[in-house]
Amino acid sequence: MKLLRVGPAGAERPALLEEDGTLRDLSALVPDIDGRLLADEALQLHIRAAVGARILPALDPRGLRTGPPVGRIGKIVCVGINYRGHTDHRGNRVPIPTEPVLFLKAPDTVVGPEDTVLVPRGAEKTDWEAELAVVIGRTARYLRTDEEALAAVAGYAVSHDVSERAFQYERGGQWDKGKSCETFNPLGPWLVTADEIPDPQALRLRLWVNGTPMQDGSTADQIFPVAQLVRYISQFMTLHPGDVINTGTPPGVAMGRPSPQPYLRAGDVVELEIEGLGRQRQELKDA
Amino acid sequence: MKLLRVGPAGAERPALLEEDGTLRDLSALVPDIDGRLLADEALQLHIRAAVGARILPALDPRGLRTGPPVGRIGKIVCVGINYRGHTDHRGNRVPIPTEPVLFLKAPDTVVGPEDTVLVPRGAEKTDWEAELAVVIGRTARYLRTDEEALAAVAGYAVSHDVSERAFQYERGGQWDKGKSCETFNPLGPWLVTADEIPDPQALRLRLWVNGTPMQDGSTADQIFPVAQLVRYISQFMTLHPGDVINTGTPPGVAMGRPSPQPYLRAGDVVELEIEGLGRQRQELKDA
Repeated sequence: MKLLRVGPAGAERPALLEEDGTLRDLSALVPDIDGRLLADEALQLHIRAAVGARILPALDPRGLRTGPPVGRIGKIVCVGINYRGHTDHRGNRVPIPTEPVLFLKAPDTVVGPEDTVLVPRGAEKTDWEAELAVVIGRTARYLRTDEEALAAVAGYAVSHDVSERAFQYERGGQWDKGKSCETFNPLGPWLVTADEIPDPQALRLRLWVNGTPMQDGSTADQIFPVAQLVRYISQFMTLHPGDVINTGTPPGVAMGRPSPQPYLRAGDVVELEIEGLGRQRQELKDA
Repeated sequence: MKLLRVGPAGAERPALLEEDGTLRDLSALVPDIDGRLLADEALQLHIRAAVGARILPALDPRGLRTGPPVGRIGKIVCVGINYRGHTDHRGNRVPIPTEPVLFLKAPDTVVGPEDTVLVPRGAEKTDWEAELAVVIGRTARYLRTDEEALAAVAGYAVSHDVSERAFQYERGGQWDKGKSCETFNPLGPWLVTADEIPDPQALRLRLWVNGTPMQDGSTADQIFPVAQLVRYISQFMTLHPGDVINTGTPPGVAMGRPSPQPYLRAGDVVELEIEGLGRQRQELKDA
């Protein structure tokens, strides 16, 4: 299923996109697309049955905003340096980490896939990061196997892990300072349920800035694949239904490019896409 | 007001502790103590009026668990190295940061003040940190003055920022890995509203392990006081009602002590207290 949430920010209604492009209103069946729904397999079967029975009302997509596809996200765990071929801000090859690098991003940074992204006041180095987001559907705690890890995944989505490199690296302390600025995590358009993504390690990710291709990678180049990440993270923190993992970005971010790096400014347009998971488009404005 | 939440985990009801120790049930007035209530001054006045009119039913505290005093916390922003006199894990004096060190802690780590704290599997260096928590009551975004910052504070609470130093420092990457283990943030017993804490920079914090005093500090020794922290954080991320700031811990953690450091193990009992904000007591168990 392609699940999504449409309507004004903060008042989205749950919806489903059918194969033929018809948008169906789920709000008579479920209050929201959130951890509670993702953990409830019976309710998901109920949705599938209603789709099959063609009893769900259609929604007119014209003029309808798409929100983030998951509401009430509990936490966002981010993975750093998870693709081969990264260079740092000095152009040096980044060593491959021996275990996943984790950090957190505030859930209130999440916006819809076409919402405005704000360049923070005082920002100098606002950067893009196309990422595969994993959405958790089952509590994951000290998992032992990759099978358990994949069973805990409800689905996948496109995620834009917007980052301010000056805040991240030059203001003392931890990366989090450059990761949790408002609007810094466009998510969606859809949550595609895991049954429709037979191999999460074979997805092409692409990102353009003002129409110029900037990132073109594949999850095949992830250092730590999805199953391993979920299992690893579950040793350090409990993952709950509705939690999100941003699994890292392929090479091609502004930071890794020759000086002067083409950091984002108001007026820029970023588009990003993951095979089968849909496309995002954001215009940048000053905060 | 001393606001609190009592009852089984996940099903707490809002309550209020009167000066004479009487516990009053607020559940007829408000659904929960959360960001919505903290942002609603009219509703808070309504509570005060109901207390004055003595119309709130009393609750029998016997056998009643105290939960965390705030529900649905959106994010927890933590401040590192915010007291003078810290030493690192090699016994060296930690330099005073030129600006606040920030990191995030997952909100699902929050438990009640007397709930069990779990030593994670594989943990080697589980450590204590008594902290003053600031609870936000008003959206804070690019604040300019200390007055605006203090106006955004709904109240204060005791917070235990439990930390696993091996996960934090020895497993690659960012501190977050050692900060978001389950049960790692006992909070409460009360949210004391800001009007009852005329000077948040004059509070004594103390912590004991198995009855032995381990931390004894004062918020007077904070490098960056509360007002400055709220203002600073608001330049990097938007603070929302119901967000929590853990403002750092005074010297005396296990990490800063001579080897072998007395890290926490199952069976240990940690007690901590902040003047006017109440007392916590946790027993440690293995996860």
